[in-house]
Amino acid sequence: MEPNASSYSSHSFVEIAMEVHKVVPPPHISTIHKLKTRLKETFFPDDPLRQFKGQPLAKKWLLGAQYVFPILKWGPSYNLTLFKSDIVSGLTIASLAIPQGISYAKLANLPPIVGLYSSFVPPLVYAVLGSSRDLAVGPVSIASLILGSMLREQVSPTKDPVLFLQLAFSSTFFAGLFQASLGFLRLGFIIDFLSKATLIGFMAGAAIIVSLQQLKSLLGITHFTKKMGLVPVMSSVFHNTKESMRKPRLFWVSAGAPLASVILSTVLVFALKAQHHGISVIGKLEEGLNPPSWNMLQFHGSYLGLVIKTGLVTGIISLTEGIAVGRTFAALKNYQVDGNKEMIAIGVMNIVGSSTSCYVTTGAFSRSAVNHNAGAKTAVSNIIMAMTVMVTLLFLMPLFQYTPNVVLGTIIVTAVVGLIDLPSAYQIWKIDKYDFIVMLCAFLGVIFISVEEGLAIAVGLCIFKVLLQITRPKTVMLGNMPGTNIYRNLHHYKEAVKIPGFLILSIEAPINFANTTYLNDRISRWIEDYKEEEEEELKKHSGLRFVVLDLSAVSAIDTNGVSFIKDLRKALEMKGLEASETKKHHFKYSFLFLVNPIGEVMEKLQRADETRDFMRPDFLFLTVGEAVAFLMSTVKGQSSNHV
Amino acid sequence: MEPNASSYSSHSFVEIAMEVHKVVPPPHISTIHKLKTRLKETFFPDDPLRQFKGQPLAKKWLLGAQYVFPILKWGPSYNLTLFKSDIVSGLTIASLAIPQGISYAKLANLPPIVGLYSSFVPPLVYAVLGSSRDLAVGPVSIASLILGSMLREQVSPTKDPVLFLQLAFSSTFFAGLFQASLGFLRLGFIIDFLSKATLIGFMAGAAIIVSLQQLKSLLGITHFTKKMGLVPVMSSVFHNTKESMRKPRLFWVSAGAPLASVILSTVLVFALKAQHHGISVIGKLEEGLNPPSWNMLQFHGSYLGLVIKTGLVTGIISLTEGIAVGRTFAALKNYQVDGNKEMIAIGVMNIVGSSTSCYVTTGAFSRSAVNHNAGAKTAVSNIIMAMTVMVTLLFLMPLFQYTPNVVLGTIIVTAVVGLIDLPSAYQIWKIDKYDFIVMLCAFLGVIFISVEEGLAIAVGLCIFKVLLQITRPKTVMLGNMPGTNIYRNLHHYKEAVKIPGFLILSIEAPINFANTTYLNDRISRWIEDYKEEEEEELKKHSGLRFVVLDLSAVSAIDTNGVSFIKDLRKALEMKGLEASETKKHHFKYSFLFLVNPIGEVMEKLQRADETRDFMRPDFLFLTVGEAVAFLMSTVKGQSSNHV
Repeated sequence: MEPNASSYSSHSFVEIAMEVHKVVPPPHISTIHKLKTRLKETFFPDDPLRQFKGQPLAKKWLLGAQYVFPILKWGPSYNLTLFKSDIVSGLTIASLAIPQGISYAKLANLPPIVGLYSSFVPPLVYAVLGSSRDLAVGPVSIASLILGSMLREQVSPTKDPVLFLQLAFSSTFFAGLFQASLGFLRLGFIIDFLSKATLIGFMAGAAIIVSLQQLKSLLGITHFTKKMGLVPVMSSVFHNTKESMRKPRLFWVSAGAPLASVILSTVLVFALKAQHHGISVIGKLEEGLNPPSWNMLQFHGSYLGLVIKTGLVTGIISLTEGIAVGRTFAALKNYQVDGNKEMIAIGVMNIVGSSTSCYVTTGAFSRSAVNHNAGAKTAVSNIIMAMTVMVTLLFLMPLFQYTPNVVLGTIIVTAVVGLIDLPSAYQIWKIDKYDFIVMLCAFLGVIFISVEEGLAIAVGLCIFKVLLQITRPKTVMLGNMPGTNIYRNLHHYKEAVKIPGFLILSIEAPINFANTTYLNDRISRWIEDYKEEEEEELKKHSGLRFVVLDLSAVSAIDTNGVSFIKDLRKALEMKGLEASETKKHHFKYSFLFLVNPIGEVMEKLQRADETRDFMRPDFLFLTVGEAVAFLMSTVKGQSSNHV
Repeated sequence: MEPNASSYSSHSFVEIAMEVHKVVPPPHISTIHKLKTRLKETFFPDDPLRQFKGQPLAKKWLLGAQYVFPILKWGPSYNLTLFKSDIVSGLTIASLAIPQGISYAKLANLPPIVGLYSSFVPPLVYAVLGSSRDLAVGPVSIASLILGSMLREQVSPTKDPVLFLQLAFSSTFFAGLFQASLGFLRLGFIIDFLSKATLIGFMAGAAIIVSLQQLKSLLGITHFTKKMGLVPVMSSVFHNTKESMRKPRLFWVSAGAPLASVILSTVLVFALKAQHHGISVIGKLEEGLNPPSWNMLQFHGSYLGLVIKTGLVTGIISLTEGIAVGRTFAALKNYQVDGNKEMIAIGVMNIVGSSTSCYVTTGAFSRSAVNHNAGAKTAVSNIIMAMTVMVTLLFLMPLFQYTPNVVLGTIIVTAVVGLIDLPSAYQIWKIDKYDFIVMLCAFLGVIFISVEEGLAIAVGLCIFKVLLQITRPKTVMLGNMPGTNIYRNLHHYKEAVKIPGFLILSIEAPINFANTTYLNDRISRWIEDYKEEEEEELKKHSGLRFVVLDLSAVSAIDTNGVSFIKDLRKALEMKGLEASETKKHHFKYSFLFLVNPIGEVMEKLQRADETRDFMRPDFLFLTVGEAVAFLMSTVKGQSSNHV
């Protein structure tokens, strides 16, 4: 059945002891070519042009159009069966999108109708440009929350509602511009810097802040702090509780579907005429579709900095959610979403949205899950949802007149409490304590400082950890696994044994400016340790002869690293000479040996080395086993010559 | 001669084909212990307390005192022979230190005598606290230049000389405080972030700026720009040349020793009475030792930010020079300097200096080289130098009255031109193109923007490179080296061959938040590539069966990385099941296999894995060779069962 494999294995797994394989320099590649490869790996790791290769021109044009507008790909083969699935799921998510849209707009301190506008235009744009089949787009809690709280720090939504709305649309424009640019410039990997730990901490912190803010609705506190952050919120609650506390009029905690609570509460308010008894309701909402809003965008003036900052933060956060949700469902259904293309789709959606009275939208996790479970097959479910919202906007707006605000507060709290993910937090605690600290910092930073700073601190800590790992790379001493020529960490594999006369070290990080000083110190200490140990063992063997550096795990090297290897070699040669003078040993071999440097490292060593010392066959080895075997044989050869 | 080694090698280098070694989890270490080890490696990589171990208490006290004051270590054994060497070298460096001190003070826009004060107190402090035997301390060109130019951006040294002097002393205080804190908090590794490329570019840029500024002396231009940066300097030269150009009166370009030129020019000016003919001279200098200056330190007021910033930048730059010089000469003479201890010594020296009318000092490269070549044996040569400067301050000041300023300008230009290191720049170009760009950015940034920003840009680029390496880790496909069970990069070793049915990948970076998305995409692409290749080869073999990930070079993993491995495993298992259903293959083994994860990685995988799937012996292997051999044998076993 596997003739190749079996005939192959029959001759290849015979190890000839002491055989030494030549370490060859990697094939020569020009700098331009290397640059090209590097750029391609950095910006096009998914190789989007691969499908174009070897196709006729017409086909290439079609593929190109399909690449830009994925609807052209699945549109032609769309059929009634798919449509049936999509109409069910579309209506289902619409029933979720309408109350959520109104609630989240309130969360962002915007008029409730803006939430409905934002559930109409963006889904249509996404249906044309997006490549995910399950993503249900619309306003989401976290982006609404950030947008509202960041703008509210400088402008009051109650005192200056028009300016606030202008700033919200402008922020949406910049969020979209930023998202589309990231995708277009293939810089999508920037969102990777928001690690899982950061996001979990951040979302939990934001959820707590939002829940506290909703005390405003639930407890009926009217004078509420403009700032986010636990301390001002708490003191505001405390003060208001004393000053203007009125007993909570309705404490609706619904576990049912948002639409059900909206309908039920609206009917109740209407029937009981509760709006005349102090229950605040949404009030009259204008009928009609999205009015244009491009004349409201602000590209200058004193608030430009604020809207750019708000756009950046909401843009990156909503992008993270959208991309993550898209990837999750694509993995479930085993199809691919192109991260950078999705970013362009979401970005364009927000740019268009900012001109049509929509605020920041993205793919929402809860709604996409519902969409997926209701059997959505294509982006047509988004179109169905948009149509439903359109009908609502055109004809059903009077129905929301009596919807009590408190039910919207409840919907918000229910939604955001779901953002607190304790099992994941526990899992992080179990796996990686540092990640747990990052999570905690994101959480506490958002609660006690601010959204942006909490996020910045967590991202900074993640990067600091990476830098610290590089500044203090792991260097481990290797020993031989008895009966093999495998060498492994002595601390990990207790059965591994040291080879007398050898110090075998493995460096497990790139060698660069950030760690050469440390590596120098550390290796000096290993050598001194070795000498001390030797004295203790009563000079049973004749001392340290060879330092073997296993460079297999050194993924890169820079000029500082090359100097480090050269200097270490010189220093050890000097010490080796001294030792051989005092002890009357004469080795023609140097003291430092390198094992298995990867192509790039070997090439750089070679270029730094005019005398071709590094490429001498008695200096470079393919495996630690071969180095040890070869060096031992030279020692034995020499000692027999001396005798 | 080596009975152990030879008897050892006789039995250990026999490889038994198909033998599979159990991969064991690393020995359990508590979180506290791990934290302790990690902190120790981060902050005490040199293990300064090792010498204290197992010593009696009295000895410990003595060692402690010697640790704080290295003079106690070498002082008792000091003798006449050493003194003879030190007195020669001390007088030699004094002859360099006096003219340089005056010149560099001018470079920092300070009164010339401050340069001499700074060559008196700091060397005495360093002699007591410093651990280098060759370092000659005093003002240096680069720190003088930065101090002068940063302060001059806000305060004019000619219009407001007293305030300028106060700010200079205050900056010196903060520089010292920062340096000592870095050493005390064991954060010395921060200076490692100034890579060789950064420093070479930075110093060359600074040298060009200083040389241009010295056109002021050499061309006799009186109205000179306050700002640094090429454009303002050039335009200032241009304007002044037109407006107030007077013909250069003296264009002394001396190749001789600074002192010789100072003496000669002073005598010439005195003899020709040239000071009456437009040659500007230093003028009367006050006789006497350093006056106290602690009352001039400013810890509040509007300039506090400026002095702290100036202190930070000059502190870190002068520290980098001092530490690098100390390490260089220690390596030459084969003794150790403790980086963190040196930082404390240099920091205390500057704090004391700031109270005794000195500005920023450190170990100077040129002077230390002279010191070393003149035969310095201990820090006593610094004391001799300080004494010589003291005699000068007390009795010889009138002699400098007629020293022309232009000769000081020449000394400065000669000194700073030596900072331009073209051979190293060429070496960097040859070895690493990215480092060359970093160097160029530091160079151009300093010239065209400013000292701080040029430096910040270069450091930022270095960190960005490190992050980019982690964001896009190298993943290489491994193949078998014929006749062995060694597996190496297929692109590097042309003789390596692919094993049919296997995709063997080696990931060469930590797996963390910054790269899990990329790795996911990249590995999917490898698998697709494999499938396409397979089709081309006309289904000669039965398709991809096993994905083997070699984790030897994965030095760390975080929670995102653990999720990545878990998800990849699940996804591949799903695909594997599909494939086995369609092709009627039945494997009881999963699809993804891991090879040689290091201790930390294995431990985290284990903790994330309730069902102990990752620790199953048919999932983890010690080497790629063993994994391939074992998996092949299972395939063969199965196919023979099926037949």
